[in-house]
Amino acid sequence: MAGNSFGTIFRVTTWGESHGKAVGVVVDGVPAGLELSEKDIQEELDRRRPGTSRVVSGRSEPDRVEILSGVFEGKTTGAPISMIVKNIAFDSGAYEEIRDVPRPGHADLTYRMKYGHLDHRGGGRASGRETVGRVAAGAVAKKLLRASGIEVLGHTVEIAGIAVDREKISMEDIRKAYDNPVRCADKGIAERMVKAIEAASKEGDSVGGIVEVIANGVPCGLGEPVFDKLDADLAKALMSIGGVKGVEIGAGFSLARMRGSESNDGFAVDGKTGKIVTITNNSGGILGGISTGMPVVARIAVKPTSSIGKPQRSVNLKTMKEETIKVGGKHDPCLCPRIVPVAEAMVAIVLADHMLRAGMINPCSVSKVR
Amino acid sequence: MAGNSFGTIFRVTTWGESHGKAVGVVVDGVPAGLELSEKDIQEELDRRRPGTSRVVSGRSEPDRVEILSGVFEGKTTGAPISMIVKNIAFDSGAYEEIRDVPRPGHADLTYRMKYGHLDHRGGGRASGRETVGRVAAGAVAKKLLRASGIEVLGHTVEIAGIAVDREKISMEDIRKAYDNPVRCADKGIAERMVKAIEAASKEGDSVGGIVEVIANGVPCGLGEPVFDKLDADLAKALMSIGGVKGVEIGAGFSLARMRGSESNDGFAVDGKTGKIVTITNNSGGILGGISTGMPVVARIAVKPTSSIGKPQRSVNLKTMKEETIKVGGKHDPCLCPRIVPVAEAMVAIVLADHMLRAGMINPCSVSKVR
Amino acid sequence: MAGNSFGTIFRVTTWGESHGKAVGVVVDGVPAGLELSEKDIQEELDRRRPGTSRVVSGRSEPDRVEILSGVFEGKTTGAPISMIVKNIAFDSGAYEEIRDVPRPGHADLTYRMKYGHLDHRGGGRASGRETVGRVAAGAVAKKLLRASGIEVLGHTVEIAGIAVDREKISMEDIRKAYDNPVRCADKGIAERMVKAIEAASKEGDSVGGIVEVIANGVPCGLGEPVFDKLDADLAKALMSIGGVKGVEIGAGFSLARMRGSESNDGFAVDGKTGKIVTITNNSGGILGGISTGMPVVARIAVKPTSSIGKPQRSVNLKTMKEETIKVGGKHDPCLCPRIVPVAEAMVAIVLADHMLRAGMINPCSVSKVR
Amino acid sequence: MAGNSFGTIFRVTTWGESHGKAVGVVVDGVPAGLELSEKDIQEELDRRRPGTSRVVSGRSEPDRVEILSGVFEGKTTGAPISMIVKNIAFDSGAYEEIRDVPRPGHADLTYRMKYGHLDHRGGGRASGRETVGRVAAGAVAKKLLRASGIEVLGHTVEIAGIAVDREKISMEDIRKAYDNPVRCADKGIAERMVKAIEAASKEGDSVGGIVEVIANGVPCGLGEPVFDKLDADLAKALMSIGGVKGVEIGAGFSLARMRGSESNDGFAVDGKTGKIVTITNNSGGILGGISTGMPVVARIAVKPTSSIGKPQRSVNLKTMKEETIKVGGKHDPCLCPRIVPVAEAMVAIVLADHMLRAGMINPCSVSKVR
Repeated sequence: MAGNSFGTIFRVTTWGESHGKAVGVVVDGVPAGLELSEKDIQEELDRRRPGTSRVVSGRSEPDRVEILSGVFEGKTTGAPISMIVKNIAFDSGAYEEIRDVPRPGHADLTYRMKYGHLDHRGGGRASGRETVGRVAAGAVAKKLLRASGIEVLGHTVEIAGIAVDREKISMEDIRKAYDNPVRCADKGIAERMVKAIEAASKEGDSVGGIVEVIANGVPCGLGEPVFDKLDADLAKALMSIGGVKGVEIGAGFSLARMRGSESNDGFAVDGKTGKIVTITNNSGGILGGISTGMPVVARIAVKPTSSIGKPQRSVNLKTMKEETIKVGGKHDPCLCPRIVPVAEAMVAIVLADHMLRAGMINPCSVSKVR
Repeated sequence: MAGNSFGTIFRVTTWGESHGKAVGVVVDGVPAGLELSEKDIQEELDRRRPGTSRVVSGRSEPDRVEILSGVFEGKTTGAPISMIVKNIAFDSGAYEEIRDVPRPGHADLTYRMKYGHLDHRGGGRASGRETVGRVAAGAVAKKLLRASGIEVLGHTVEIAGIAVDREKISMEDIRKAYDNPVRCADKGIAERMVKAIEAASKEGDSVGGIVEVIANGVPCGLGEPVFDKLDADLAKALMSIGGVKGVEIGAGFSLARMRGSESNDGFAVDGKTGKIVTITNNSGGILGGISTGMPVVARIAVKPTSSIGKPQRSVNLKTMKEETIKVGGKHDPCLCPRIVPVAEAMVAIVLADHMLRAGMINPCSVSKVR
Repeated sequence: MAGNSFGTIFRVTTWGESHGKAVGVVVDGVPAGLELSEKDIQEELDRRRPGTSRVVSGRSEPDRVEILSGVFEGKTTGAPISMIVKNIAFDSGAYEEIRDVPRPGHADLTYRMKYGHLDHRGGGRASGRETVGRVAAGAVAKKLLRASGIEVLGHTVEIAGIAVDREKISMEDIRKAYDNPVRCADKGIAERMVKAIEAASKEGDSVGGIVEVIANGVPCGLGEPVFDKLDADLAKALMSIGGVKGVEIGAGFSLARMRGSESNDGFAVDGKTGKIVTITNNSGGILGGISTGMPVVARIAVKPTSSIGKPQRSVNLKTMKEETIKVGGKHDPCLCPRIVPVAEAMVAIVLADHMLRAGMINPCSVSKVR
Repeated sequence: MAGNSFGTIFRVTTWGESHGKAVGVVVDGVPAGLELSEKDIQEELDRRRPGTSRVVSGRSEPDRVEILSGVFEGKTTGAPISMIVKNIAFDSGAYEEIRDVPRPGHADLTYRMKYGHLDHRGGGRASGRETVGRVAAGAVAKKLLRASGIEVLGHTVEIAGIAVDREKISMEDIRKAYDNPVRCADKGIAERMVKAIEAASKEGDSVGGIVEVIANGVPCGLGEPVFDKLDADLAKALMSIGGVKGVEIGAGFSLARMRGSESNDGFAVDGKTGKIVTITNNSGGILGGISTGMPVVARIAVKPTSSIGKPQRSVNLKTMKEETIKVGGKHDPCLCPRIVPVAEAMVAIVLADHMLRAGMINPCSVSKVR
């Protein structure tokens, strides 16, 4: 059943397989009058490609986006925006060997069991390549949010057990996280992360980590209880990214070990703005499923890359005999660097949708009074 | 914007405020022919009421459910099932004092900012009382799942830093978790949890914890990538519960510190059934957003109860002056015991919906060939 | 599969069977701050009951509505509004005879084939009684629309071939249509309609007709192409009413026989307001699926009541032998009078939803600047 | 707000403007295992192009479709199917003159008022060109339905007041309706329709008509009351087509003048199949919103083409002065011929969706037992 769309007013539909002709996305519900160009999209897509650094795989595609509809004379028209990126650099041959032997940790088996018929080349729809559409849609969402003073920032906070000290990094550091290949806001930690990735990679192994996304400037009032709460929609959006197995908001799982007197964020009046703020932000900017006006903070657990060179136990689906499998081809030994922009995109999509749902952006045109 | 419905085919709409006339739910999309009685619902609602144990608050309501539609001669008809529970034992007077001073950690402020107008009595819609509708709907979902051989079990795995050793508890222990007031599968640990709750309570404070839900018997093939993945929908469903600030699937956040060779669940052939199984279950029964056939495992971070007796900083919304607030009234010093059945309900609702979405239950009638 | 909800932002879910305990509706997505009382709802429900006039059946129920949630201190809170009407005056015994012999023109057969299990008493969910929930929801929609200067008016324009001359009736006449039992804006025609109904009734037969709904004050800009066009949603809303087999907008089917030079509504500038208007309104206030600012006009074809005393051919589902059936019990010999308020309700629901979708009503609170 | 998607399980999202780079569609929710090729789609698209007959406009585009995703080795994979058709032969210059003067009967004014910003070239999104995506999606739906023994047939039943005698044409005649440029099942009538169109065209005018769609082989049980009734969804689907201003099911508006004893379709047992059938089919194959197993019959009122050469009254939006406008360019003087395949497509999409909703097609794979 149709599961490739996300959002209610700002609605994203992605399509395309890893080794098909192209990947793409249709973004419906974007108000008219927003300045938007292929350059806006391309910049975000480029952030998805850490280049040929030491920590990411070699598949190098230019990933040139083309906007096919919904934009006229440099502005959105209110019509759905269709964007496409052609697939160029792939070698399906490498996947022949896994045609009948599902890779542990991958979706090979479950797709096959569900659909009966599998596009086995490169994971098909379950491939990370599907995220091209998410990032392109996220670029539109970000552009829309920026006009409302909202910025969405992602960075890697932990890889292979090496974690940044959140107290030591500033918002400015986070804005520079893309300067290093692991997208970590602390340069020194970034260097250690890189080494840990390389060490695992040499052994034909992979590592996991944690990515954080922060949204600044989110107004109070986003979120539609009791099911479409802002944190509930963020959880779905982020958990839908391949490789993500956990989501937490604000202090998240560490709240389980706090007392209420410690976890509750007291209220105060901001001296400058005269607005109510919280003294701490353990709630991650969300109370009762509605944004408080403080920064929205979400973190995701990223599992180690499933494709590893080490031998693993599997079963040949034709013979139903157990076999040992080594996954060849070039794969990132850590998913975090590539997931950072995808996580940003998903948070931006959720926020854009909720800005519209809460009536804080006019759904017809950005130039109309809200 | 409408946010009080959840699910696509099996669709739940809850309504009702803490101090209104009643709370209830409409469950649409239940196939005809399912045996269902008020007793089925009542049993689940009763599990939501830990009684007057030492760890839960005193508000004692019989919570008698009434089925108003959708059931005829003991069976569902395919029409929407409307269920209602009247509110009886509440005292709104106790809430007058918080009319203008939002309680830290509560939704008082955000509801007020969003809607302009607040039902301040007992938290209104943001109250835990809203979960009555979820549990009633979950009871229908569970009945439907049971007919397909699926059971959904919840239990508390950690409170105030006191955690069960998951290796030491059996599925049978988990089935007995409701025997103690904290719903913990390990009796000894349960006793320590109770003491920790009491200790905090005496100090006018509260504690958090972690709840786990396991679903056994889930067939391979549930989940609709790339957005309506099974884990994505579970994340949304669970994060939508008040007080939940984190969700993880399978090994969750601990995967961030594993290597791929450790986290990947190898495949093997089950000697008895001849079916493919995974040797470990770090994936929590979900790969690529689709169930594997192994138990589905989700855990949620529950923050400490926001209502505490200790003085906290807040702001009077009329005067915009900072004030100190102590929250009176009777409140559970730990939310976990009450959240266990709610979390079960949400997991059951997601699974019922996905069983229908995957065509594994006939949407018209349970007696039709699937 | 769940089909008992309608609308996207203003979302209506009805429940209840003809001979169950109660019927009701949950209206989600109503902005906070709208003044709303049970009296508002009751007035609309009362319009649904033409009383014991000569043209409607005798089943007399007080139909007292109770608001169970979503309203506090006389105003909506933004939470879902649950409304209930208890079923009192029904006699299920009369339906025993049709348990196995489906009534021609009724949904008896199709419900039975679809769900396997039928609540045969009074048509169950397919009964006109289901419209109680629609009218209650429509009352909320109307209240919301009125605050934006929109009025929704229904009236019967044809019964048994006796039609009003639309040129001869004024908007004021239409507002008085409820003064006679057939809800016709022309008194003289109304009298003839009554006689035609009585004549058919005496013969154990029934008649059909046409009902029109007009919405005045609808601003330009409602409707979300290309699928959620205003006319498309109106068509669905109206066709979903039992007994309706046709929907037309503006000049409707008569456009098929016009030429473009005749059907196109020329544009002009209104002398008073300075706004653009159309000189004629063949488009029924909708162009390209978007409202023009002119009155929105829809008409529906209402089939003759299916329950008739005359003998009809049917089949006994147990014996699979053909049988003759006469439908006993008290039934309206013409559905039009009762459908008028239901059609109004559906149009109001569609308009309220589209006012919210177009950003012309703030989804959080009516008192916020739009 | 997002309005460019249709359907729940079988979900269609169209995109593209008349004078943009391309038009296209994403079809989500197609079960895996369905044989599908570009040829299947192309055949339907070709039916949309009556060629350079005397009754249709000259814009001649090859309209070559390309399938970009969701099909592998000749079969659907369960992933979304993205299809694209490039726009080639258009001349936007001709539209400069209407930049500020809205064409009567067109969506120029309403789009401009709603979105503030208009792609004025060729009507942008409101152009008939948008239906390319509908027809492509309909081709997928038809292929899916054919595997279940359902055929969907469209034909023109009336143009400019010249109507076929429905009693005189057979299903075989209807299957051949595409043999003539007006898609009429009666050759003689077709010739008269052509002449009427030509006569109007010569005068710079246009004509309207009525199109009928029949679906044979639809099983009993499709439709999800009380809102997602089969006829309600058909009404929405058909009314969403540009130029359509009325929809009727079965005997439709003529039922308004019948008596119940005449309109009710009696039940009988089919001698051959032993199944229950209706003796007549005034209900158009739908009772209580659920299909009966008889042919589903829908008719739509098509207004005269809005673009006419005759002078019409309009208003210049810049000067707000009234102006006379003559619409140049090549336009079909009657929309019916081109709407026939679009109406078929929409009916097929609705039926495919409802076959899936009713569990009569497995949503994962066509090869799974239903």
